[in-house]
Amino acid sequence: MAPVIPRSGDAAFANVERVNAELFTLTYGAIVRQLLTDLEEVEEVNKQLDQMGYNIGVRLIDEFLAKSNISRCVDFKETAEVIAKVGFKMFLGVTATVTNWDAEGTSCSLVLSENPLVGFVELPDTCHGLYYCNILCGVIRGALEMVSMKTEVTWVRDMLHGDDAYEMRVKLIKQVPEEYPYKDDE
Amino acid sequence: MAPVIPRSGDAAFANVERVNAELFTLTYGAIVRQLLTDLEEVEEVNKQLDQMGYNIGVRLIDEFLAKSNISRCVDFKETAEVIAKVGFKMFLGVTATVTNWDAEGTSCSLVLSENPLVGFVELPDTCHGLYYCNILCGVIRGALEMVSMKTEVTWVRDMLHGDDAYEMRVKLIKQVPEEYPYKDDE
Repeated sequence: MAPVIPRSGDAAFANVERVNAELFTLTYGAIVRQLLTDLEEVEEVNKQLDQMGYNIGVRLIDEFLAKSNISRCVDFKETAEVIAKVGFKMFLGVTATVTNWDAEGTSCSLVLSENPLVGFVELPDTCHGLYYCNILCGVIRGALEMVSMKTEVTWVRDMLHGDDAYEMRVKLIKQVPEEYPYKDDE
Repeated sequence: MAPVIPRSGDAAFANVERVNAELFTLTYGAIVRQLLTDLEEVEEVNKQLDQMGYNIGVRLIDEFLAKSNISRCVDFKETAEVIAKVGFKMFLGVTATVTNWDAEGTSCSLVLSENPLVGFVELPDTCHGLYYCNILCGVIRGALEMVSMKTEVTWVRDMLHGDDAYEMRVKLIKQVPEEYPYKDDE
């Protein structure tokens, strides 16, 4: 089944309340710095950022469904396109490209065009292994879980570590049959 | 000297990069929750939020001066109006009212029309004494310090504690004579 091209998130983004991106970037930086101070291991910081993101994602999905006018996606391919083109746009004002599908259609990459979380950031050597933007993985995982998709979301390329892009891998682990509380529009 | 009515921040707000306010609200909530978990005393959380805000404010002032086209304020009264009408608008998309000036013109209140930080928030009884939005006090203190004004900024009314408004008190402690690195436009 060919994925439906979702509407762009421009309209949704125009209709939501917004705050200054630089304030957001600096506020997010304050979180990461706090966690690096409080937790001993970088790996623990990654976990905590992912968990924070998860908690945000399970709530943000409501705003997404309410404001995006997206009805239920037919398959995971369409879901990925919607996250990339509508979700990222609606929340961060940027889009992502969906690429590198596996043969089963259950695993793909989202490559970010821009990344509003990383303004002003340079990682010191002590932060080798830190996934600075790991909160985003958690947000996607949390949001998808609310619409019955169990996923694993991890960074595979990170420009803060010298890679040439921000690329996250989204892997569908299990699709729980239809019992979620959000009604399809149709 | 009558304070000059500053330009509204609408134009500046329209021209900056922005992210979804709900994402910001939830992200900020994650910070506060993390601090409440990590630090034992609510008073320590207040201090840490203020310090985080300070660190943000000392950087955000650059964006403010670059994008707002505000030239140097003639006095503290004008400064307060600019924060209320341009600063809050540019970063949070809301405005504040300046009120309750003391006789010396060195101390006033900023009353927020809306508060984008507190969406979805209810404080449990264990958080008596928490100034949930204390980061804002720090931001203002930090930003003003970069333009040569030492201030104290504290919450005096907080709707999360049952007050009828969000009111912060801004007190000018010392105005350091002109040596700051930002050139006046004139």
